[in-house]
Amino acid sequence: MALNVQKYGGTSVGSVARIRNVAKRIAKWKAAGHDLVVVPSAMAGETNRLLALAKEIQPHPDPRELDVVASTGEQVTIGLLAMALLELGVPSRSYAGWQVKVLTDAAFTQARIVSIDAERVREDLKQGRVAVIAGFQGVDRAGNVTTLGRGGSDTSAVALAAAFKADECQIFTDVDGVYTADPRIVPEARRLRTITFEEMLEMAGAGSKILQIRSVEFAGKYKVPTRVLSSLTDPMIAVGQEGQSGTLVTFEEDPHMAMEKALVSGVAAQRDEAKVTVRSVPDRPGIAYAILGPIADAGINVDVIVQNVGQDGMTDLSFTVARSDLHRTLKLLKDQVQPHIHCREVSGEDRIAKVSIVGMGMRSHAGIAARMFRTLAEEGINIQMISTSEIKLTVVIDEKYTELAVRVLHRAFELDQE
Amino acid sequence: MALNVQKYGGTSVGSVARIRNVAKRIAKWKAAGHDLVVVPSAMAGETNRLLALAKEIQPHPDPRELDVVASTGEQVTIGLLAMALLELGVPSRSYAGWQVKVLTDAAFTQARIVSIDAERVREDLKQGRVAVIAGFQGVDRAGNVTTLGRGGSDTSAVALAAAFKADECQIFTDVDGVYTADPRIVPEARRLRTITFEEMLEMAGAGSKILQIRSVEFAGKYKVPTRVLSSLTDPMIAVGQEGQSGTLVTFEEDPHMAMEKALVSGVAAQRDEAKVTVRSVPDRPGIAYAILGPIADAGINVDVIVQNVGQDGMTDLSFTVARSDLHRTLKLLKDQVQPHIHCREVSGEDRIAKVSIVGMGMRSHAGIAARMFRTLAEEGINIQMISTSEIKLTVVIDEKYTELAVRVLHRAFELDQE
Repeated sequence: MALNVQKYGGTSVGSVARIRNVAKRIAKWKAAGHDLVVVPSAMAGETNRLLALAKEIQPHPDPRELDVVASTGEQVTIGLLAMALLELGVPSRSYAGWQVKVLTDAAFTQARIVSIDAERVREDLKQGRVAVIAGFQGVDRAGNVTTLGRGGSDTSAVALAAAFKADECQIFTDVDGVYTADPRIVPEARRLRTITFEEMLEMAGAGSKILQIRSVEFAGKYKVPTRVLSSLTDPMIAVGQEGQSGTLVTFEEDPHMAMEKALVSGVAAQRDEAKVTVRSVPDRPGIAYAILGPIADAGINVDVIVQNVGQDGMTDLSFTVARSDLHRTLKLLKDQVQPHIHCREVSGEDRIAKVSIVGMGMRSHAGIAARMFRTLAEEGINIQMISTSEIKLTVVIDEKYTELAVRVLHRAFELDQE
Repeated sequence: MALNVQKYGGTSVGSVARIRNVAKRIAKWKAAGHDLVVVPSAMAGETNRLLALAKEIQPHPDPRELDVVASTGEQVTIGLLAMALLELGVPSRSYAGWQVKVLTDAAFTQARIVSIDAERVREDLKQGRVAVIAGFQGVDRAGNVTTLGRGGSDTSAVALAAAFKADECQIFTDVDGVYTADPRIVPEARRLRTITFEEMLEMAGAGSKILQIRSVEFAGKYKVPTRVLSSLTDPMIAVGQEGQSGTLVTFEEDPHMAMEKALVSGVAAQRDEAKVTVRSVPDRPGIAYAILGPIADAGINVDVIVQNVGQDGMTDLSFTVARSDLHRTLKLLKDQVQPHIHCREVSGEDRIAKVSIVGMGMRSHAGIAARMFRTLAEEGINIQMISTSEIKLTVVIDEKYTELAVRVLHRAFELDQE
């Protein structure tokens, strides 16, 4: 008799037939005695349709009004899913973000959850109802509708699980868990039964699209046991195999989990980035800010940043941005930054990939970086940039070697073996 | 410097281009110095799309959840219209029903407005903003989303005009006012510059689809000056011709308006009804209830009801229902009513039309009924049922004579002359 929060993505509720299927799954979980809070996304394609309408009216839509429009996608799904449950005889009630209420800050289109008032829904659960709550949306203190940004339904689900002190937050997607690498690249990749919150965070940052990064942060902050599960497998199997299905995000404090940790848990790759290099800039305090400040002001996200040790009072600065921002970044640097800092050259390269290995074991084991670099060198793969964190090692390489790099690293760290 | 509430129907906001046009109209009204509260419907077709989705999931959708889904149509429009205004440089802000807040009872899909909290919007108006408020929707005391039923945006607009003590509630539609008869039937029909609230109410009941009947009731209850205007004419003309455009619904208390009243203000016809006759029922107390009670219980609306003076202790009862309800009504009468009341016969007729003349002058002038009956008799049109009210005279006739009846009555009461 657990209380579970279940999140279903846009593909899982993408049609009337699929909404009915999700309702059947929920009905079986309910019949097995669980209390359920369900968080569906908008029907696949709906959010894009609404954004397109908005952009037709205003090329840069007003953020407050955009949230009013964009939040309707989830509101349609909660009503339809509640109906599908009622049609199956499962008592159910839907709630929009403002009804629950999911209080956020006022940062329209990328709001952050402040608190959730669980009382009304607790009463529903007590009465045996399944609560269906709109993901992605909330309400600010002034009563304006807000949205949490792309992938925000994951965050809603984790936040609701924290508010209800749920036994588990179950994220149903079209994959059945987190793998040691993308199985399309590495056929022998293994599903991880558990992954620590810190590893999941780095995996999300390294290009794994399984969980939205802010939802992982939230899970970590409130220690929400979060499980990634497939919405495609038979629901009864899933119900029966609780605790074994999917991948559970755990917290290092759990000694049982920590014991079984391998050195490296996974390899991730990301291709949609581009590299920008600013050569021979004066090596003095404030130079990184002089270059990256205007880029941040333009709303461009910078990912990996590497500054070499300078010589002769000059240094090089390289960083990666989303590939779609490359052109804008270069123009901005040439127009607004280069005239002031007198660098020699600004150049861009968009045929790059970012490949990362992630693992809790990296904190306490030496030689992991060396093994990574040697493995790549043996395949003749040149490393263009290196960036490290406590539990992640990232290299930027020529894009054409992406799959090769992922495969050889997967083998080098014996990720195919339990 | 008036405060006007303007309502735009689904066709007026049916596409991005049309939303832009509405925004341009509003911008001109604003530039002319008016304060504006705007109430748009859902984009044409959107409410039907949402209802169809719901019915695919649940043939008889749960009313609470249906309102959650159906109310999103208006929420999309308010956001888009506010964006279109902002794009034109007109300060604007949108509000869903629960934000304003439009408090209703809990009768999902046909809720009635209880109160409106105007404070937040007053502040917007003070700051020079156009407030764009979702029609058709509200929120009940428990915080559930409600809708007002078909045509509910008219009611929302009138209720908001009452709450804000607006100078005028302007209903923009695809006709430029209320006519003495349907101009498609009577080419010489005239637009009425004014119509009393009572007449408008009877016209709505008699088949005129220009204003939803509950919005007229609301206008009467709160004495809201309500004007029907075309959204197709040039906005600058409309702005310049205030007080002359469209048709203004007035209140008899206004002596200036009462003076100029003609005997009859308009002729209306309705074809989508059917006639049911129950013959030779015992003429005793409670018999009408015995027949009509079960019909009301089945949710079937009965319109005209006529019971003849009985003879030999027996009487006939006739009434009209929506044509789409005829089959169900007859089955119900034969199965559940006839066995108990021992009537001789239950019969139905669906090739009928209801033709009405409406006018405040009818209260104080004799001979109007006689003139109506003579006019129809001269054309060989047989009258099947007659029903009268203070300011309306309705006859039920063979459907094929509808246009002829409307034309000859229009002429007989000299409605083509000012």
